[in-house]
Amino acid sequence: MKTISENRCFGGTQGVYSHPSDVCRVDMTFGLFLPEEAEHTPVPVLWYLSGLTCTHENAMSKAGAQVWAADHGIALCFPDTSPRGKGVADDDAYDLGQGAGFYVNATQKPWAPHFQMWDYVAKELPKVITANFAIDEDRQSITGHSMGGHGALTLGMGLPGQYRSVSAFAPICNPTKSDWGRKQFAAYWGDEKNWGPHDATLLMQDVGFDGPLLIDTGTDDQFWDLLGTQAFADAMAARRQPGQLRLQKGYDHSYFFVTTFIEDHIAFHAEALYS
Amino acid sequence: MKTISENRCFGGTQGVYSHPSDVCRVDMTFGLFLPEEAEHTPVPVLWYLSGLTCTHENAMSKAGAQVWAADHGIALCFPDTSPRGKGVADDDAYDLGQGAGFYVNATQKPWAPHFQMWDYVAKELPKVITANFAIDEDRQSITGHSMGGHGALTLGMGLPGQYRSVSAFAPICNPTKSDWGRKQFAAYWGDEKNWGPHDATLLMQDVGFDGPLLIDTGTDDQFWDLLGTQAFADAMAARRQPGQLRLQKGYDHSYFFVTTFIEDHIAFHAEALYS
Repeated sequence: MKTISENRCFGGTQGVYSHPSDVCRVDMTFGLFLPEEAEHTPVPVLWYLSGLTCTHENAMSKAGAQVWAADHGIALCFPDTSPRGKGVADDDAYDLGQGAGFYVNATQKPWAPHFQMWDYVAKELPKVITANFAIDEDRQSITGHSMGGHGALTLGMGLPGQYRSVSAFAPICNPTKSDWGRKQFAAYWGDEKNWGPHDATLLMQDVGFDGPLLIDTGTDDQFWDLLGTQAFADAMAARRQPGQLRLQKGYDHSYFFVTTFIEDHIAFHAEALYS
Repeated sequence: MKTISENRCFGGTQGVYSHPSDVCRVDMTFGLFLPEEAEHTPVPVLWYLSGLTCTHENAMSKAGAQVWAADHGIALCFPDTSPRGKGVADDDAYDLGQGAGFYVNATQKPWAPHFQMWDYVAKELPKVITANFAIDEDRQSITGHSMGGHGALTLGMGLPGQYRSVSAFAPICNPTKSDWGRKQFAAYWGDEKNWGPHDATLLMQDVGFDGPLLIDTGTDDQFWDLLGTQAFADAMAARRQPGQLRLQKGYDHSYFFVTTFIEDHIAFHAEALYS
């Protein structure tokens, strides 16, 4: 593992690191905020999965999350949104390939050799950070924005017991019915009959989440039609899934929306991580 | 005035606007956060001046200031750091020309026609924002980072009565003795004998500031030698200037430092603006 940068931040450290990834078969970069408490004892971690076009850097710099993570004594891990670099397949579109891994394991050419973001986020990176930093692997929660909200919801429901709580900001919740989903699933998995169980609405219908759940989406989200919020709300209600789906008046899809509600989300996860 | 974007943020609005500037003779862009209170009544404004290479956008996205400005009912104005665009002089160096206006009025070619940032920030932009938004022109305070800290200190001391309180993050405090200053003053003003009174240490020696003053600088600032903190500390003590100069252990020059202490600065200004 290589240290790219470390900056003092709210009494802790905001670091950026890279490491050779076995599952993505390329060097991967991630951000990690460690609160002051991590100098003395392992701390719980909240995963933050970013959206289309983002890297590890966006939320780390723009979400304003560290102030609340420091307050609650929680580490924040910011993975990249895809493998990157020379030799890694890409596409000219902003919503496919590099920057658009969709948190799935690709099976199709040219994506399969590197695009294994489900295994990377669910399995490999947790091992890397718990081996190298004072992070308690038994206390993990997950959140994310847009495509990262899709990632948080599908990882949360798909891996029972791994995350104590799940939240999301303006998540893509029904990708099998959206242009943010169908295009990418077809590219990464081929024929629709081979698509994995990576649709939050379908997972909510099938299994739900056994723990606290919080979702915020803005009523003025400019991508509303791509998110599938209505289908997810329907599935939540049909299951009687405990949780909060909050539609926030006047907010859009930007980081100004995320930063407005990040305090609530971190407090929400802190309750699960420290109970 | 033209609206570039408006995003709902902490119950208020984070806007970006552009307008033709009379003093810079080119269109200028600025960011403005208005708290919810501005829907009903004029609110006080805190100016945030950014550092070298920044635009109106950096602090607006990365300082995490809006949460506290919303708490205190204060507007935040983020001017650009220089005139920009076609027909505006520039230099290949990151620290001269576009992105490096140093908050002075240039008198030399090729800078004089557009680089009038002192008048822009001190006179023109306040008129623009008070004419177009619910901002109380009698309640202004000022802060800034690095070159913007230099701007905040020199505007604060140079224009008695205009700002109720002044603060700065890692300010350039003695530019006439620093490579961050001598180069730019020589370019913008020519011979040293023509340099204006735009050095915070010299202004502290000569006039000081009649109001609350707060400065934070990191002990691990990678640009420590360029800032002139020691000279400014000496001048503060010599004058018995009321105020706080805080050296923050382990912090560097980055926005991770700024965001860590922005809550303190906004609370500090709020006390002056609402007293």
